[in-house]
Amino acid sequence: MSKGLPSRNNDFSGWYNELVKKADLAENSSVRGCMVIKPYGFSIWEKMQSKLDSMFKETGHQNAYFPLFIPKSYLSKEADHVEGFAKECAVVTHYRLKSDKEGNGVVVDPDAKLEEELIVRPTSETVIWNTYKNWIQSYRDLPILVNQWANVVRWEMRTRLFLRTSEFLWQEGHTAHENRKEAEEETLKILNIYSEFLEKTMAIPVLKGIKTDNEKFAGAEETYCVEALMQDGKALQAGTSHFLGQNFAKAFDVQYATSDGKKEYVWGTSWGVSTRLVGALIMTHSDDRGLVLPPNLAPIQVVLVPIFNSDEEFKVISDKLNSIGEKLKSKNISYKIDDRKNFKPGWKFSEYELKGIPIRLALGPKDIKNNSIEIARRDTLNKEIINEDGIENKIEKLLSEIQENLFIKAKIFRENNSSEVDNYEDFKKIFKSNNGFVYAHWDGTRETENKIKKETKATIRCIPMDYGKNPGKCIVSGKKSNGLVVFGKAY
Amino acid sequence: MSKGLPSRNNDFSGWYNELVKKADLAENSSVRGCMVIKPYGFSIWEKMQSKLDSMFKETGHQNAYFPLFIPKSYLSKEADHVEGFAKECAVVTHYRLKSDKEGNGVVVDPDAKLEEELIVRPTSETVIWNTYKNWIQSYRDLPILVNQWANVVRWEMRTRLFLRTSEFLWQEGHTAHENRKEAEEETLKILNIYSEFLEKTMAIPVLKGIKTDNEKFAGAEETYCVEALMQDGKALQAGTSHFLGQNFAKAFDVQYATSDGKKEYVWGTSWGVSTRLVGALIMTHSDDRGLVLPPNLAPIQVVLVPIFNSDEEFKVISDKLNSIGEKLKSKNISYKIDDRKNFKPGWKFSEYELKGIPIRLALGPKDIKNNSIEIARRDTLNKEIINEDGIENKIEKLLSEIQENLFIKAKIFRENNSSEVDNYEDFKKIFKSNNGFVYAHWDGTRETENKIKKETKATIRCIPMDYGKNPGKCIVSGKKSNGLVVFGKAY
Repeated sequence: MSKGLPSRNNDFSGWYNELVKKADLAENSSVRGCMVIKPYGFSIWEKMQSKLDSMFKETGHQNAYFPLFIPKSYLSKEADHVEGFAKECAVVTHYRLKSDKEGNGVVVDPDAKLEEELIVRPTSETVIWNTYKNWIQSYRDLPILVNQWANVVRWEMRTRLFLRTSEFLWQEGHTAHENRKEAEEETLKILNIYSEFLEKTMAIPVLKGIKTDNEKFAGAEETYCVEALMQDGKALQAGTSHFLGQNFAKAFDVQYATSDGKKEYVWGTSWGVSTRLVGALIMTHSDDRGLVLPPNLAPIQVVLVPIFNSDEEFKVISDKLNSIGEKLKSKNISYKIDDRKNFKPGWKFSEYELKGIPIRLALGPKDIKNNSIEIARRDTLNKEIINEDGIENKIEKLLSEIQENLFIKAKIFRENNSSEVDNYEDFKKIFKSNNGFVYAHWDGTRETENKIKKETKATIRCIPMDYGKNPGKCIVSGKKSNGLVVFGKAY
Repeated sequence: MSKGLPSRNNDFSGWYNELVKKADLAENSSVRGCMVIKPYGFSIWEKMQSKLDSMFKETGHQNAYFPLFIPKSYLSKEADHVEGFAKECAVVTHYRLKSDKEGNGVVVDPDAKLEEELIVRPTSETVIWNTYKNWIQSYRDLPILVNQWANVVRWEMRTRLFLRTSEFLWQEGHTAHENRKEAEEETLKILNIYSEFLEKTMAIPVLKGIKTDNEKFAGAEETYCVEALMQDGKALQAGTSHFLGQNFAKAFDVQYATSDGKKEYVWGTSWGVSTRLVGALIMTHSDDRGLVLPPNLAPIQVVLVPIFNSDEEFKVISDKLNSIGEKLKSKNISYKIDDRKNFKPGWKFSEYELKGIPIRLALGPKDIKNNSIEIARRDTLNKEIINEDGIENKIEKLLSEIQENLFIKAKIFRENNSSEVDNYEDFKKIFKSNNGFVYAHWDGTRETENKIKKETKATIRCIPMDYGKNPGKCIVSGKKSNGLVVFGKAY
């Protein structure tokens, strides 16, 4: 295996961990559960941020910034919310260190104890609704459509790079509206932005749906989600959009005067995606040779490698590569010429395969003679020698082909790993062997959901958007079901 | 006064506080010392980020992300560093809350005490150099040119929006090099980026110089800085670039193998600017009517206001404004048409003055007839009626004029408020009345510096870059001075 990665079939989780490290995406820090996102990994996240940020802005949202710290008492104001987050909160209790009298560096100064402890935000609904209280007097102040890019902390005992870390980066949108309808529309608008972003930019097909009460956000009336299927058959929640109803408005007493002078509680939504998406990207497209990046997110889309035996050859080939580079630039295609002399072409090839660069061009003395160039696709690993004329147009076209191909490939994988079952035996068999998305009837009760989870580790990933149109019988209890729901083992 | 701002002359600090709030830039949160950056304020910060980020990338730097938390023991590894930051550290001691048995919401779970306390980063040298230790084996791994955009916390007892807050946003660059020369060059390269950014983008003239030992960064060998003069005659440190020598490499044992196989400690730099710059922007350019923004940072560069008495007029004027908008768009000029009918033009005018929009266009029925338009500059408050032909070119030109004018105005202000003195009596007189930058000879000792600070509250803002070329006599001790240094009262 290239660069010594375990194979996905033998050890998916080992493959993932090694790939993240070897492709220079991220590493564990010495601070338990917190990761260091390395420059290459961060440049992928920056591309995601930039696209999402423009999609939010095009739909009227603005960025703002709210405090990292939340007074402990705020968390308690919404009952479900505190219940959901209390067990994973990092707590600031003091605001000063002092020199240790016994000479062991510094110790916490007991005289600098905070009157009220501060929680490092696990999410910002409470501190934001406490702020909105002052921003909202009348219907003229609505809607508020705000997003923030921030770090959050949820203390995790078992962590995995990108997928589950104690500190992670994300965006969290928090909007406030006059009525239920508008807030529900916003929730769905964002769900559609997430789904479009995942499918068009990340080339990851997603299911859109609603969470069961068991799985919904602590404090939401409804949680909508986009769910993706990873190559090991496990499901990954890629983004959530919450309809908060009036829950946080009531908890923080946020009322507005309607146009006819009445007082009403404000309606809210919140929504977020995180650096976890980098994990989803890796587990959807990459292979045993390393990362595979969709062109829309690749920090470098094309790498150019010279093949040469003499300084003379090098000069001619370099000039040619530079002129090809200029042509790519004219098409806004990002590229890198790797003309380092102390690394062999073969070493470079496997390095850029590991890093997932979508297209590799290699140019040797023969090509100069023939006006040809070798072009290799990272997604299919196909190589071919093509005529160099109009190279920039060919590459532009190929980049969209690769983008599309990755999406189709992932979609076929999902289809091949989705099934509908009408009995619990088949259901259990699937989750003993190959996992995947399983559509089955469910009676709508928490008891049945919990029983299934206990016996198979599968949970309801989402209730599809068209739920209710095709009733049937629950595969476990035999009771009435309003429709098929989607089960999976979750990351 | 427009919108009820205090005047700068009567109450500069009240003017500043009110302006920040009334222009919707930021507000205090309910968390002590932490601010909420509101959408309008944040959009200015985003413009700053975007420009700086591209300047860093053009000079070969990459972004990455390091943990929010720093183990307490790391801070102690560099003696000056811990001394400088220990007194303002927010300390995480626990990782879980639990329900209070007496029903009072949640309490800190005493069973979830961390073995080692974690510090919320006040700056990231320690956690980053601890990481670099693993990234650097040989000279081939150098240089490392990394930046991160992040939040940091320094516990402050007396805070002011943007200028001094317990949590603030910033960028912090951390680079590692083979030798002293390269690290020194990097330090100066960044100093020049900061100075160019402040002068060209923010229209703020700066002095470049070196900090005295009293004022330098805790852990640096030398701190370079850019210093600006605010309208109240006080100095503001706008950015710092630190030459760290081998201090952090030694503290975290970061050595590299040289090309001839020897082991040497790595050389480092770090550098940062923060949301404090938004405060500098306000205090440099704004006036008693509100914010004044340089066009290069204005989220909206031109506002268009229709003047009308009937729906018929409104229709014609609106169409015209939309077509002007399209012309501005073709020049990449950002604009907003405020055609709200429930606000009068006069109200809108003062609103956009408060918000600092560089250019205001107003169009009425007469203008339609005359093919004219009223154009008002925020910086000079001049208004004139001009022919509407080629409006986009006129505005493009005017925007650069405004950008330049703001810089020149600020530079003249600084010149009028800078002086050179050769005796301590004059020195004291200046700092009793109007402040400003004062150039004076100093004997180079900490004693003299402290005496001056105690007696006048003025400190050495920087030692100019050409220091050493013009020796003289210290105005306090009469001893030998190597050159003039710059004094000021600091924010």
